[in-house]
Order: sequence, then C-alpha cells, then structure tokens
Amino acid sequence: MRAAFMYGAGDVRVETAPDPVIVDQTDAIVRTVRSCICGSDLHPYHSAPRTAEGRPMGHELIAVVEEVGSEVRTIKPGDFVVVPFAFQDNTCVFCREGMHTSCLHGGWYGSAETGGLQADLARVPLADGSLVKVPDVDPATADEGLLASLLTLSDVYLTGYHAAHMGQVEPGKTVTVIGDGAVGLSAVLAAKQLGAERIILMGRHTVRTDLGIRFGATDVVAARGAEGVAEVLDLTNGEGSHIVLEAVGHMPAYEQAYGIVRPGGIISRVGVPQYEEAPIGFGSLFGKNARLAGGPAPVRAYLEAAIPQVLSGQINPGLVFDRTVAIDDVPAGYRAMDDRTALKVMVTP
Amino acid sequence: MRAAFMYGAGDVRVETAPDPVIVDQTDAIVRTVRSCICGSDLHPYHSAPRTAEGRPMGHELIAVVEEVGSEVRTIKPGDFVVVPFAFQDNTCVFCREGMHTSCLHGGWYGSAETGGLQADLARVPLADGSLVKVPDVDPATADEGLLASLLTLSDVYLTGYHAAHMGQVEPGKTVTVIGDGAVGLSAVLAAKQLGAERIILMGRHTVRTDLGIRFGATDVVAARGAEGVAEVLDLTNGEGSHIVLEAVGHMPAYEQAYGIVRPGGIISRVGVPQYEEAPIGFGSLFGKNARLAGGPAPVRAYLEAAIPQVLSGQINPGLVFDRTVAIDDVPAGYRAMDDRTALKVMVTP
Repeated sequence: MRAAFMYGAGDVRVETAPDPVIVDQTDAIVRTVRSCICGSDLHPYHSAPRTAEGRPMGHELIAVVEEVGSEVRTIKPGDFVVVPFAFQDNTCVFCREGMHTSCLHGGWYGSAETGGLQADLARVPLADGSLVKVPDVDPATADEGLLASLLTLSDVYLTGYHAAHMGQVEPGKTVTVIGDGAVGLSAVLAAKQLGAERIILMGRHTVRTDLGIRFGATDVVAARGAEGVAEVLDLTNGEGSHIVLEAVGHMPAYEQAYGIVRPGGIISRVGVPQYEEAPIGFGSLFGKNARLAGGPAPVRAYLEAAIPQVLSGQINPGLVFDRTVAIDDVPAGYRAMDDRTALKVMVTP
Repeated sequence: MRAAFMYGAGDVRVETAPDPVIVDQTDAIVRTVRSCICGSDLHPYHSAPRTAEGRPMGHELIAVVEEVGSEVRTIKPGDFVVVPFAFQDNTCVFCREGMHTSCLHGGWYGSAETGGLQADLARVPLADGSLVKVPDVDPATADEGLLASLLTLSDVYLTGYHAAHMGQVEPGKTVTVIGDGAVGLSAVLAAKQLGAERIILMGRHTVRTDLGIRFGATDVVAARGAEGVAEVLDLTNGEGSHIVLEAVGHMPAYEQAYGIVRPGGIISRVGVPQYEEAPIGFGSLFGKNARLAGGPAPVRAYLEAAIPQVLSGQINPGLVFDRTVAIDDVPAGYRAMDDRTALKVMVTP
C-alpha cells in the first residue's frame, strides 16, 4: 500500500509500505475512503528532528472495513465507518466517564507499531470500541460533501465540539473563538449548535472568517495581542467573554485567552499546547476566578450523536475542506496547509 | 483605636491609630466582636519588604455596626454582622453572576485607604452590599463556639466552600484536599457538606488531620511530592481523584494536584498562588483533560446560606480556631501561626 511518512521538518514522503495485518484479534483492517491532513500535523512539519525511519502520518479517516480479528463482535467487513483519531476500548472506567482519550487500553496513531492513517489501508486496534458505523451510506456513490462532513467527525469538527462542550457553551453566552483554522471554525459551528448568543471569531484570513460567519460567528476581530484583547473587551461592554475557545496552541493565543475571559469564565483549549509552563497565577487566571479546560477530544464520546446531525444535513462541517489531493500528492497538501493557501486538505486514495 | 500594622517580614505591631470615619455615604463604621489572623497573612509575614509606613492588617471580622452613611439602606447601627474579606456592591454584573471578588466597585482591605480588620474599629465601604446581618444573636452573650463559627464565614470556611463549589463536588465523587491548614480543613468540611463520597486529606500535622477526620476526611496521606501522589493513586485504584482542592498556594502543592487529578477531573485552587507561571501543557493538565478552577472566594455569594447552617449547628467550622489572643497580643498570634504551634488564631478586642 501507499502511506505518508515524515522524515523530518518539511520532509513528507509517500512510500510503498507493507499492507497492515491483524496483530491482535480485536483489530480491524480498513480501506481508506477519505483521509486528511490536520493542523496538528504542521507542528512536526515545522520542528520534527530528522530521522532515518520515517514516522507514519495521519489520524483522520473514514473507511470501509476489510477484515476483522476473531474477537471483534460489532464491526464486520463491508461496514462504512468513522475512525476516531485515537483508539479506545470504549469500556474502561475513563471511557465510561466520556474521557476516551485517556482510555486505559487506548492510544494514538503515528508510531511504527500503530501506523498512520494517511494511507491506503490501516490497522485499527480495539475495533469494537473505536469504529462507529455510518448507517445507510454507500461511500462509492455518496455525495462528496457528505463524505467531507463525515470525515470531520474523526477529529476536526468534534475537536471543535469538545472545546465548546468543555467550555460549557449554552444559550445566552458570549463565546470568543481564537484561531480561524479548521478547528477554530469547527468550534464556531459547535458553539452555534450549543446555542451561544454571540460568537466572536478572532482571525485575520478573510476567506476563513467568512466561513466562520457562515458557521455562526456574529463578530470578527482581526487584531491580535493586546489590541485584539482590547477589541473583544470593547465588544463585550468591557466585561469579557463568558467562554474562550482556544484553537491554536501557541502561547500568544493562550495569553489572548486569559486577557479576554470574563471573571468566572472558562478558557477551553483544544489547540495542542506548544508550551508546558504558562501564566496561571493571580494576574492571569486566579485573580478573576477564570477556569481552564480542554485537552485531546474524546471524539468517540460524541460520534453517535454527531453522525445523524451530518446525515440529516443539520450541520455541514465538511465545508472546512477547500482542497483535495490524491495520496501521492500528500506532500503538496502539507505545503499548501503550511503556506496557508489551503485551510484543510482532504486526501483521496 | 488599636490596630495591627506590618512593617516588613516578621514585624507586626499593634499601634494606636485614628478611629475610622465615614468617607463615602455608603460606608459603615463597625466595632469588632472578633477578628482573626489568616494563613494568607503569613505570606507577607515571610516576605514583605520593610516600609516606614505600616501596612494595616486583617480582613476577617464579625462586628457590631456603630454608624452608617446617609445612603446606607439595609444596615443600621446595632446590627450584628459578618464582614466578608472583600467589599462589594452586590449589584454589579459580576456580583449578579456570583463573582463578588471581581465586583466592579469592590476592593480589598489592607491599604492605607481601606484600613485593616485586625483593629478595634473598621470602615466598611459599600455597607449595603458587603455586610450580612446575623439575626437573633447578641454577640455580648453568645456562645464562644458560635462566634468562632460565624467568624469563619468572613473568609476561611467559605473559602474552603468556594474550593469545593468550583470543584463541582457532589455525591459519589472522590475529593483530595491538599493542605491541612484552616482553609484545607474547611474544604474538607465543605466537601462533606456537598456529599463527597471519599475525602482524602493530605497533611502531616496529626492534630490538624485529626480535626480533618472530624470534619469528614476518610483518608489521611502524610507523604508529599511524588510519594504523596503515588499514595493517593494507590488509594484510588490508580485512577486519581475526581476533584483536588488545593489549599496551600505553593508550587509543590500545585504539582501534587495535577499528579493526583483523574482524567477529566478538576483542580480547584484557593491557596493564593505564590507563583505566576506553572505547568499546564500536555504533560500536566492538557493531556488528561484536567480542568483548573478557583480564585479569591466570593464569600458574599455564599453567606446567606451559610449563616443558618452555623446557627442551627449543622456545621461547626469554628473548630479551626485553637488559640485566642487579645488585640495587643496580635504579634504573638502571628508568631504562633508561623511556627505552627497554632492552627488559626482568633483576636478579641
């Protein structure tokens, strides 16, 4: 099969690799319908050290099941499935509490052992817990827009949803979303779904913020830093935002977040932090009782509810895809996302 | 009147000062029934720079109203009141949201302008918003234990309560309290009131942890650091604590907190952080979706509910006081709390 590997910053290659095989009897082998490139893939694209063995890339996928291990009970060959970006048993204590990304037996794609999902085929561990079937859709004849929206349920839309959920977005609240990437725009759409009264989108790429407005943003703030904070405070009568959804992961975005959040409000982060230490003392969070939430989205927890929303057309999160490449052109897809000529790139087999 | 002033680390003096007077017509002048020394007073006691003008000390008080300004409507001379450790109008947008310590017109005691509450008399700004009357109690004849418990409602018990409230303590939850000072023990009592199933108290002073057990702690862990974290994980089947109430404010306590908290759990801080930057990235909070909450307690938000609990004997938080000094002996009270021979020191006029 063909699969994408990263050999270091800026160096993504599509190579022929051995087809994956069942390792544990709880595995499934799936064949890609659509995969894609994630904003978080750009972090190693900027900074990964050079290695002789490429790191398998990709963690977002919709696929058709080819083969299952002898212990797989609920998934069968031919099923059209969404593959969440982390795998999990969906039965452990943390999964039962909705924290599937902390599953006691789960893990992440992208190692030599687990492989990546920017590939023709993939091995999915813990198939019963990880895969969710899409009912009554034939991927061979399905509408491209529908496939795009289903693909967002493997990560990007439900990561935005997780931000809004952990931020406790509800009717009447003012929500500020920091970041106009695909996760930020997904967070706008999710906040709208959860009934936010006002959604301020902080971003400076008009094509993207226009999609944000289509998704439900009521205000756009292009300024950043202290100027951006001041603009959001102006928009909120000097009070600040009840909820701030931080969809970037860099320190300046976090600094904006605690500048904007209202006393007693919540900052919910889903941009993977590119820092470990940050201000949380009296001058940032503590003094105003600001709360901090977020982390890797347990998309598995939200999938059963989201699939019907996509199938019914209630939400159309697939609009975040603005380019499609064949798997052989994945390196060009990374370049397009890195130089921001593409918002999010879909990959076809 | 007599009042306590700090002239630098370790240097507390009781001096004769001018009686306070009404400055704004929303002020009240109150006469001390009981005041006390706070664990947070020990931070400047350790590190305050030397100054020629002493800083007025104290922010916890029950008192009788002597005089009110012409615009005070609900409080009158002779009322026996609890004085919250911050003053507020109780009408602004943040007060209405229960975030009284962020009141648009509120503030803190301890400046030359506002004075301190370790004194015979005090000026309370925004008296209608700040003072809460204790009904049907004559402080001249009231039981000492009752006065002690009412005094805790000006700060220490309701700060512990705030920790538990922001930590979303509820029946069925495992709560770990870090710190066996008066706030930590108050947090134990509050967690018990909110129905916590299990309350693990981390502290190494047996006299204090014994009171913690009386307040509802089910387990005591004396170890600190990595060893303490390991013990709490052992006690929780390796899963961690749903809620961690951090009642210290120093970095090692915060580091324990994120080591102990369960995926998706909440760390609620009420120890005033003696740091600004701290770990919040993938390796501490983000990776396991741990949440962070807490800040200066809006005790005014909780006072109306807490006073009847004290009057009825449902809670007896005044047990945290283990020494009483007359105001002239306040310096000895600081020394006793600093060398840990006293848990919390009450001050009589």
